[in-house]
Amino acid sequence: MLSDIEIAQQSKLSSITKIAEKLGISSESIELFGNDKAKVSLKEEDKASLGKLILVTSINPTPAGEGKTTVSIGLADRLNQLHKNAVLALREPSLGPVMGLKGGATGGGYSQVLPMEDINLHFTGDIHAITTANNALSAFIDNHIHQGNELGIDPQQIIWKRSLDLNDRALRNTLVGLGNKAQGVPRQEGFDITVASEIMAVLCLASDLSDLKARLARIVIGYTYQKEPVTVQDLQVEGALALLLKEAMKPNLVQTIEQTPAFIHGGPFANIAHGCNSVVATKTALRLGDYVVTEAGFGADLGAEKFLDIKVTNLEKSPDVVVMVATVRALKMHGGVAVDQLDKENLPALEKGFANLKKHIQNMQSFGLPVVVAINEFAFDQESELSLLQTLCQEIEVNALRSSTWANGGMGAKELASTVVDTIADKKAKYRPLYQNQLPVEDKIKKIARNIYGAKNVFFEKNARKQLEDIKTLGWDQLPVCIAKTQYSLSDDASLLGVPKDFDLTVREISPKIGAGFLVVLTGNVLTMPGLPKRPAALDMDVDEKGNASGLF
Amino acid sequence: MLSDIEIAQQSKLSSITKIAEKLGISSESIELFGNDKAKVSLKEEDKASLGKLILVTSINPTPAGEGKTTVSIGLADRLNQLHKNAVLALREPSLGPVMGLKGGATGGGYSQVLPMEDINLHFTGDIHAITTANNALSAFIDNHIHQGNELGIDPQQIIWKRSLDLNDRALRNTLVGLGNKAQGVPRQEGFDITVASEIMAVLCLASDLSDLKARLARIVIGYTYQKEPVTVQDLQVEGALALLLKEAMKPNLVQTIEQTPAFIHGGPFANIAHGCNSVVATKTALRLGDYVVTEAGFGADLGAEKFLDIKVTNLEKSPDVVVMVATVRALKMHGGVAVDQLDKENLPALEKGFANLKKHIQNMQSFGLPVVVAINEFAFDQESELSLLQTLCQEIEVNALRSSTWANGGMGAKELASTVVDTIADKKAKYRPLYQNQLPVEDKIKKIARNIYGAKNVFFEKNARKQLEDIKTLGWDQLPVCIAKTQYSLSDDASLLGVPKDFDLTVREISPKIGAGFLVVLTGNVLTMPGLPKRPAALDMDVDEKGNASGLF
Repeated sequence: MLSDIEIAQQSKLSSITKIAEKLGISSESIELFGNDKAKVSLKEEDKASLGKLILVTSINPTPAGEGKTTVSIGLADRLNQLHKNAVLALREPSLGPVMGLKGGATGGGYSQVLPMEDINLHFTGDIHAITTANNALSAFIDNHIHQGNELGIDPQQIIWKRSLDLNDRALRNTLVGLGNKAQGVPRQEGFDITVASEIMAVLCLASDLSDLKARLARIVIGYTYQKEPVTVQDLQVEGALALLLKEAMKPNLVQTIEQTPAFIHGGPFANIAHGCNSVVATKTALRLGDYVVTEAGFGADLGAEKFLDIKVTNLEKSPDVVVMVATVRALKMHGGVAVDQLDKENLPALEKGFANLKKHIQNMQSFGLPVVVAINEFAFDQESELSLLQTLCQEIEVNALRSSTWANGGMGAKELASTVVDTIADKKAKYRPLYQNQLPVEDKIKKIARNIYGAKNVFFEKNARKQLEDIKTLGWDQLPVCIAKTQYSLSDDASLLGVPKDFDLTVREISPKIGAGFLVVLTGNVLTMPGLPKRPAALDMDVDEKGNASGLF
Repeated sequence: MLSDIEIAQQSKLSSITKIAEKLGISSESIELFGNDKAKVSLKEEDKASLGKLILVTSINPTPAGEGKTTVSIGLADRLNQLHKNAVLALREPSLGPVMGLKGGATGGGYSQVLPMEDINLHFTGDIHAITTANNALSAFIDNHIHQGNELGIDPQQIIWKRSLDLNDRALRNTLVGLGNKAQGVPRQEGFDITVASEIMAVLCLASDLSDLKARLARIVIGYTYQKEPVTVQDLQVEGALALLLKEAMKPNLVQTIEQTPAFIHGGPFANIAHGCNSVVATKTALRLGDYVVTEAGFGADLGAEKFLDIKVTNLEKSPDVVVMVATVRALKMHGGVAVDQLDKENLPALEKGFANLKKHIQNMQSFGLPVVVAINEFAFDQESELSLLQTLCQEIEVNALRSSTWANGGMGAKELASTVVDTIADKKAKYRPLYQNQLPVEDKIKKIARNIYGAKNVFFEKNARKQLEDIKTLGWDQLPVCIAKTQYSLSDDASLLGVPKDFDLTVREISPKIGAGFLVVLTGNVLTMPGLPKRPAALDMDVDEKGNASGLF
């Protein structure tokens, strides 16, 4: 069997200029990055009616793997086999997981975006620009304090952290500014992975360069000794930061193995941020395509909820249909089967685990959206299991289609694509957000916890309760909430699979991301800087004398 | 008067495809980065005879400014006005100084490389790739120790440091790996600016991807508890690091205001590294151009000495002529004039300061190379001073030409260019290195100190003496030496201008850069992570809603 990178390297790419031409992008709106990548900035006059939006999400992920990206790519490819003018809008991979566990994040098998090596490595430099802007801001903060601290920033109340696009646990807790007086002011510091930086969220939600600069200016980096918030604007560096990000703001155009156009742009964390690709890229795709397939991070309780409650407001367009990805294996895990027993048929466990899928379907329906289930097939799935899963979905009046996009590319999404098209045509989406921003922060959290997660109640730790008050005082209580929670469970306890009952959600901390425009609500211990495994994927990576990559998969 | 960025933005660029075509680069050898930037990788079959090499260097820099890059650009432009098929090979600017003091490093006035905004900001991402590879290596080291430390790396003997391409003094001295056991192993750490990373030096000296990987493999990151060196190869990550650098290895092609082709690639520090652009870029320029103008960092005692003793070996080509840049103002400072008195005529001080220029000329001549002096004119220079300087040069039989490239572009180097062409034709360079690598390390250092710096003797501190022994034991004593010294003086004391006499050079430490292939000899306190000034240049930077930059100058 060929590896992903071997399949990728055997694929014939169309020149990206041709892909852009077919989409109707004028040559003035495109800048090439080699033959296979381009940055696109549509002009005002290119404005067109928006296409249909297909949001791909999933059940709570398990170690068994769900294949959301692979399904998204195959679905778009099949839509184009049907001449539906489909365009993908996906997230950029982070180098941290690529070098660590995953080795790559550009789909798999015959459903990949290309050139996978470039996309997985530095791509067009967007994430590096964000790292640079993030750390330039840190340098400006520490320099301001060192040079006299006119603003009276309290070094113990700085909430802005440095970042690197790597998995590096040694940087989670650090001390900086050590040495003598000339080496700066000593303080505690931590590094996040770049995709967890507020600047990544800002870039993904900004509608244009002016909005980007305004959001950067609003970022709160910490507090003065008098507990007044200090913003980027106070430091007068929003112009410099926006300048560093001006190219990164432009969406990147690439293609799938089947030459479907794909915008890959932005990749914020789906827990401490909203986990969706950029508004600008999705909007660009919607203006150019008749069908746009996009994806939200982690399960539907995290990524899709944030897509629907946060991104939609900025995008000014809601999904026409939701595709919910599930696998027999993952549902069996939700039904209590251990990971090493997944290859055996287990219908009772599947039926039990189906509850997780059902809850997510109902959640999406509660936003007024029609749902189609994509059953992503794996080699060991039993016919009896696949058929049971389809029956269970039928019983709640949801279409569930088998999908084999990994093995078969677009052809693997034959029934899925037709059903998605029919659903959009037949069932009008009537989007409504879960909550109004005017609600008190506490109530917004409770609404998500109860309605989406199925929690009984929400418990606010003392610290969080204090922060709720501060947020009100500072006038930030009209912002939407972005809950950081384990992706493995509907609850805040990663070990509770299926549909946990009778649990309380515990809120530890509420962190203002004023530039991004939301309040991050931390539940449990969310890691914002991952570590490397004992044997990092990097150990298998190589490049030959001609520049051919290997070990990305 | 227009600012640099205004002049740049008013300039009409040729498409980089046309520039490449004129140079004879085949379309398969070029990858576009937008319309104005490209990566070039010549094929073996493109091999051609090498052009003439012009090395631009200078006297010891002063706060008065010398304008080496501006002279280099104007000289190449003038050569092309004369249809001499000239190509530039320059260094990439680091974002640290751009955001800090300088605001830009792409020449000035009418002698600039374009697009100056891009080149000064992220350019084609080379430096970001180096930052990433550098810090990935750090993460692999700390992870190795955390996961059981099979190699027995002593956390107190790690010499590999993390890096960022920023001026950030707070990162000079840090502690990492704090927190509980799951957060890694605590140790002292420091960050260098990326251009000071050994990976930058490796990339600049490597002849191709295979050589790059071999050099990366040889990098010594620290020592075991038994004091055995630990290399990147021991960690098995040279493949991953080379993969991260594969695009960064390709030289970048841009153009000057007058549309002279310019390769801008690599930018290592000129004290703890060799301070020249990449071997690959210079070689590419030499294959394509009949005249190649390149530049070495800081004064001729640092950059040019290292060009001639380190880079030439890797380049397999030595300069045909050296252009020594001097200014009346800087020489007056070397003659004892304070910076606020430079606008006044002062012939005695100029004559006294001339000694600095003379010493650098003689140094270059001692390598068997003909020298031409470029007097870079400033507005306040007096006719009497310029004329005296020319006379002083005449007396030692060196041609000194006035140059006004900042104000006049190529036309400002009219006489300079003709003299350079004539000198190459008339005076055959007979390059000989200063020392043979077989000499003991101590003798190599002494030779540079006495012959180039004019030191009486070299004093080795106890620590350095111990390291000399270790280097011998480990078999590294055949490597060339790369002396890190203040750029402001021929001595290791920044305050000693002119030509210091009767001083000893004090060697504090010798640091092996086995991947780069040299031993860094530290004299005095060399900062490898600069700090920001009280008012960073970034505060004046901005970008408008159309993406137009301002505040880069």
